[in-house]
Amino acid sequence: MAELFNALTVHKARAALALHLPPAKPGVKLALLESLDRRLAQEVRASEDVPGFDRSTVDGYAVRARDTYGATEGMPSYVDIAGEVTMGREPKGGVRTGQAWRIATGGMLPAGADAVVMVEYTEELDARTIGVTRPVAPGENVVRRGEDIGAGEIALPAGHRIRPQDLGMLAAVGITQVEVVPPLKVGIISTGDELVGPADTPGPGQVRDINSYALYGAVHNCGGEPRLYGMVRDIYEELKITLEQALQENDLVLLSGGSSVGARDVAARVIDAMGEPGVLFHGISVKPGKPTVGAVVNGKPVFGLPGHPASAMVIFELMVAPLLRTGGYHFDGEDHPLDFPLRAVITRNLHSAAGREDYIRVKLSSRDGQFYADPILGKSGLIGTMVKADGLARIPFGKEGVEAGELVEVKLF
Amino acid sequence: MAELFNALTVHKARAALALHLPPAKPGVKLALLESLDRRLAQEVRASEDVPGFDRSTVDGYAVRARDTYGATEGMPSYVDIAGEVTMGREPKGGVRTGQAWRIATGGMLPAGADAVVMVEYTEELDARTIGVTRPVAPGENVVRRGEDIGAGEIALPAGHRIRPQDLGMLAAVGITQVEVVPPLKVGIISTGDELVGPADTPGPGQVRDINSYALYGAVHNCGGEPRLYGMVRDIYEELKITLEQALQENDLVLLSGGSSVGARDVAARVIDAMGEPGVLFHGISVKPGKPTVGAVVNGKPVFGLPGHPASAMVIFELMVAPLLRTGGYHFDGEDHPLDFPLRAVITRNLHSAAGREDYIRVKLSSRDGQFYADPILGKSGLIGTMVKADGLARIPFGKEGVEAGELVEVKLF
Repeated sequence: MAELFNALTVHKARAALALHLPPAKPGVKLALLESLDRRLAQEVRASEDVPGFDRSTVDGYAVRARDTYGATEGMPSYVDIAGEVTMGREPKGGVRTGQAWRIATGGMLPAGADAVVMVEYTEELDARTIGVTRPVAPGENVVRRGEDIGAGEIALPAGHRIRPQDLGMLAAVGITQVEVVPPLKVGIISTGDELVGPADTPGPGQVRDINSYALYGAVHNCGGEPRLYGMVRDIYEELKITLEQALQENDLVLLSGGSSVGARDVAARVIDAMGEPGVLFHGISVKPGKPTVGAVVNGKPVFGLPGHPASAMVIFELMVAPLLRTGGYHFDGEDHPLDFPLRAVITRNLHSAAGREDYIRVKLSSRDGQFYADPILGKSGLIGTMVKADGLARIPFGKEGVEAGELVEVKLF
Repeated sequence: MAELFNALTVHKARAALALHLPPAKPGVKLALLESLDRRLAQEVRASEDVPGFDRSTVDGYAVRARDTYGATEGMPSYVDIAGEVTMGREPKGGVRTGQAWRIATGGMLPAGADAVVMVEYTEELDARTIGVTRPVAPGENVVRRGEDIGAGEIALPAGHRIRPQDLGMLAAVGITQVEVVPPLKVGIISTGDELVGPADTPGPGQVRDINSYALYGAVHNCGGEPRLYGMVRDIYEELKITLEQALQENDLVLLSGGSSVGARDVAARVIDAMGEPGVLFHGISVKPGKPTVGAVVNGKPVFGLPGHPASAMVIFELMVAPLLRTGGYHFDGEDHPLDFPLRAVITRNLHSAAGREDYIRVKLSSRDGQFYADPILGKSGLIGTMVKADGLARIPFGKEGVEAGELVEVKLF
């Protein structure tokens, strides 16, 4: 057992796991629209210029810019209308000195033209001649060939999560099949002799399983593929059978529950017996969430999450979500700054301990452009405290608390 | 044609549409796990107390608090071990004065007990007696019956979007079928004689359709059900046939493209001929995104979005996303403050016009806990500008610009 008996910092716990994380799974090809929210297995390069030609961004007249120099409303530059660009077609012929072609937004510039005069800055003298009342510079009102992306350039880097605009970029460069990292399959097991399912009526001493459902949602929203293995009693052999099956069928397994010392020990022993290196830490210096077991078993991460629902969800966010979203931890073990995008004024004094990170469930409000975070009071065993919250405020490792009025960093739900 | 010929503010454009929006669709029942990210059609109330009994939050001994008053390490209070709580079972018998029961985290308090002493603050004298070394108050280390949620209380309000923790709450109160608002079906049509599909090789003057794919992703990520109707030429009869079909099969239709004045007029005329009240505005005072047509046709919103990809996506965020996420606009027409959760220092001077909102594509970085927003230069016709961006910074309606160093509000992608 490689177990460390002292609670680790989040940073060190991540580092301990990172040493044993398996390499990324091989990429799979998905149809373009199916690739939304997945991560690219490989970078995507443009094989041609986008757009493939100089393109007008306005309705007007394609001209040689130098023919418009010095034009004013009082003394327009006159040019002959030599043609009209048909949308989606290559103009036959070019623009010579003293000539212009009618062109609409998105049209292809004729050869010889290097700018477009907006129709608002022209006056039609007759059917064949216009006056330009304001000069244009070369390239003005034009998207140049390859200006969106050039042939050979990287359109999207490997590992990039595909957002709506990235679907647009992939379409633009002609990608219809996208090689993405497959989602991690996550087995979810709840443990506890007191648990019954949501369809059951709890008897005296029994409660319904909450964590399986909250974790299912959390895994799903991080791009993982959750699978529930139901409720298991805190008995070594029973837990072993279910964990073995979950490990076979998934890339990562979450156990939760067993908040008593006895139950935690059973879970830790079962996990540790499954394979190498086994349990890597037993305890994280985070509140709520300290009684967390972290393990890697034959290349598959296994987490023993706390039984209290708020604790399990906080530890999920810190330790599991980064793995599901990106396949690993940020190289330096720190959170990505955008994980905590909001700054809010905390409305109460809160105590912490210097050697611990605290995550406070907060309700947010806004006044005059400033956000305020009201701590939600209540034990971490109450799912209601998470339901009332809009996010989690952090009291960092080195701080012994925050005073009302201080700014805190908030992660949003 | 109820068309207003001046560009409307976002606020007024929303108000114009809101007058004609249809009522919410009737709720549909989904299995609990399927309801993630959907909106509740009705409030959910707890039909029983959760938990259904007083529950220990620690490992220790259930006692009568008053038996521990005055206890110290030097002078412990001695109590008799009268039983042990089995997890998930009702303790048979109760705790009398001078007695304690062994109890693990999550166990049901025996009758008579009103607090739990943590095992750390006890010492075992012999197999039948412990000394308590620190007093507990009534209710200490206990979750009381109904403390998470009480019978008859609202667990989740109508319209609430179901997050992972809300799945947990629904499970806790025994809900296995959830009545949710069905997603809006959204038809997406790209118009433009110059468009080809992503699988095609564009000829001279042709470009691949970008907006269909970017909008598909955007609709999907807002909880809508997107359906692509492909590319249609800017010809009245062709657009009419496709729009008719899309309106029949969807709750909302997005057209995009046709950036030239002629194409925009065709789109507006086709939309307006479809039904009442027809086009409500033609132009929004937003940059990028001004050439936007807003309409309601027989109770179904129809948007003519700009052809430039960045413009189409900005207008989607402002005008369409709120409808898909919540079924309506915020009652006062303003954005929800959490739509712009991040404050960043803008790194360049940017000009705006006082009667217009500007949305600046920005790349974010972080230094010493402060976010910085670098504006991405480039025309709104370039999808690459959206791909490089982490979010949109807003220059509000009344401001004529921002100076480098000012704080701006940022919506994240």
